[in-house]
Amino acid sequence: MATLKDIAKGAGVTVTTVSRVLNNRGYISDETRNKVYRVMKELNYQPNEIARSLARKKSNIIGLIIPTVAHSFFSELSFYLEYYAYNNGYKVLLCNSQLEQKKEKEYIGMLRAHQVDGIIMASHTLEVDEYLSLNLPVVTVDRKVDEIPNVSSDNYYGGSLATNLLIDKGCNKIAYIGGSLKLNLLANKRYEAFINTAKGRNVDFLNVETDINGFKIEEYEELINNLFQKHPEIDGIFASSDLIAASIIKVCNRINKKVPDDVKIVGYDDVKVASLFVPQITTIRQPIENMGKLVIELLVKLIDEKDVINDNILPVKLIERETT
Amino acid sequence: MATLKDIAKGAGVTVTTVSRVLNNRGYISDETRNKVYRVMKELNYQPNEIARSLARKKSNIIGLIIPTVAHSFFSELSFYLEYYAYNNGYKVLLCNSQLEQKKEKEYIGMLRAHQVDGIIMASHTLEVDEYLSLNLPVVTVDRKVDEIPNVSSDNYYGGSLATNLLIDKGCNKIAYIGGSLKLNLLANKRYEAFINTAKGRNVDFLNVETDINGFKIEEYEELINNLFQKHPEIDGIFASSDLIAASIIKVCNRINKKVPDDVKIVGYDDVKVASLFVPQITTIRQPIENMGKLVIELLVKLIDEKDVINDNILPVKLIERETT
Repeated sequence: MATLKDIAKGAGVTVTTVSRVLNNRGYISDETRNKVYRVMKELNYQPNEIARSLARKKSNIIGLIIPTVAHSFFSELSFYLEYYAYNNGYKVLLCNSQLEQKKEKEYIGMLRAHQVDGIIMASHTLEVDEYLSLNLPVVTVDRKVDEIPNVSSDNYYGGSLATNLLIDKGCNKIAYIGGSLKLNLLANKRYEAFINTAKGRNVDFLNVETDINGFKIEEYEELINNLFQKHPEIDGIFASSDLIAASIIKVCNRINKKVPDDVKIVGYDDVKVASLFVPQITTIRQPIENMGKLVIELLVKLIDEKDVINDNILPVKLIERETT
Repeated sequence: MATLKDIAKGAGVTVTTVSRVLNNRGYISDETRNKVYRVMKELNYQPNEIARSLARKKSNIIGLIIPTVAHSFFSELSFYLEYYAYNNGYKVLLCNSQLEQKKEKEYIGMLRAHQVDGIIMASHTLEVDEYLSLNLPVVTVDRKVDEIPNVSSDNYYGGSLATNLLIDKGCNKIAYIGGSLKLNLLANKRYEAFINTAKGRNVDFLNVETDINGFKIEEYEELINNLFQKHPEIDGIFASSDLIAASIIKVCNRINKKVPDDVKIVGYDDVKVASLFVPQITTIRQPIENMGKLVIELLVKLIDEKDVINDNILPVKLIERETT
């Protein structure tokens, strides 16, 4: 492989000049710059990014910690995060924490040792202190940790849209099925809105939490089954993800409850598959692409030591389909 | 932050000894090694992985190039790839090519510049030569490129299982709906098996290809709609993914064809959501976890300059549910 020396020789300049061109440092005439680029191309020179990042103290790598990329919401979010990171010259290291504290901690140590330029945290099991001691640009998704910039969609408004729709459609006893409230996520605001709306409108309600390690499709069904056995009078459910909503359709089908006649369902996220289910799922659309884009914008600004707004709440939208 | 010098001082050894411990080089007594480790821990020392990888010529990073992590099959595969990579001490750089040649090429250049230790290619739009010139350990998924080790599931057997089931269940006119055959993927063997089985058993058949850039749920529906308009007599469809199968259920529902009474459907992959659809999708299960595990095993062996088997075909399984 060609070295800096070969390029310097080919372009008739010093190695220092070649290095300056590579690192965009010092004054270089356009003529010289173009000559160096031309020789690099001729010799098929590929700068060693590792050596360069040592010199620049930048790796151009972002660490992404999510619960699991196998879940539709996070797989779509990861797609857009990587897409916009790439457009900004960054690469993404993928870390699936499976919501295990130990793994999350190990990932953070690993990312730091690799000198990533910043971290996107969408998995939140650690204590606030551990995030604050990171000493790295961090943007969180769906969790507010002290002064760390965060991106979420308008969970409270989404929850009230969903709950009001169920009540407007005539539901008398409504349930909320969502992830563990212990994790202290901004997504819990969906539940807050659910309670406040139900209370405000004098409608009977109850709440079912999934396991702290959530995202297990098999467990949803058992949970929903139990819910209908204990409370057969439930006629409306607000599910905190479209996959939970799909599980509810499936269970209703098995126990001969008609959707939406007997039970009305509102999901959350509007992942791509939501429209594939029959009946198609009424849901609250999170702006997944815009969330991904904004997270990258904020992180790039932080890396470049620019100021950013801490709380970034993006609008949600009710998508009425066939389950309500 | 603590330096090697601080650790050497704390442990009462030379910097060279500390470096040897870190890089696992040369003879070091257990006593010395433990002393160094203890001081590292006390001083909260974190080796700079970038500097270390320069010295070791290893980055411990693997590049993963897939069409899109937003598609259920690739999101589940990526999850397992990252899981087993992590267990083997490797990190995964995520690259979504969106099946664009230009992007695939740029990713390869970028991964090489970052000195990744190896590449997993599950997106295949480039010419054979470009893969062969990589000069890096590479494992491909679902494509055979010359002598590059590859992992796939038994696509031909899967295709014959699916087609035989449709015919056994009484279908008289069957269709195959899959990705573009131009991409020369091993998955095309599903189609090969479909034709051979249909011909061998004297059943009428036809084929519908999705766009080369596939994976767009909206397009599936139009395609399926057209298919039924042109060929209303179709009573069995083998879909090359569960998401296509779900789209078929949806269209059938809209045009009042009963599944499985009027139209029988077999999907492919058995992604997690396959069991959530109503009726639940009969499908060919790819061993996604085992595929991910094997890809990592092969790549780690290649990185360690060990011999591996080139063609690795894992068994598939017919999962009969409610669409047949």
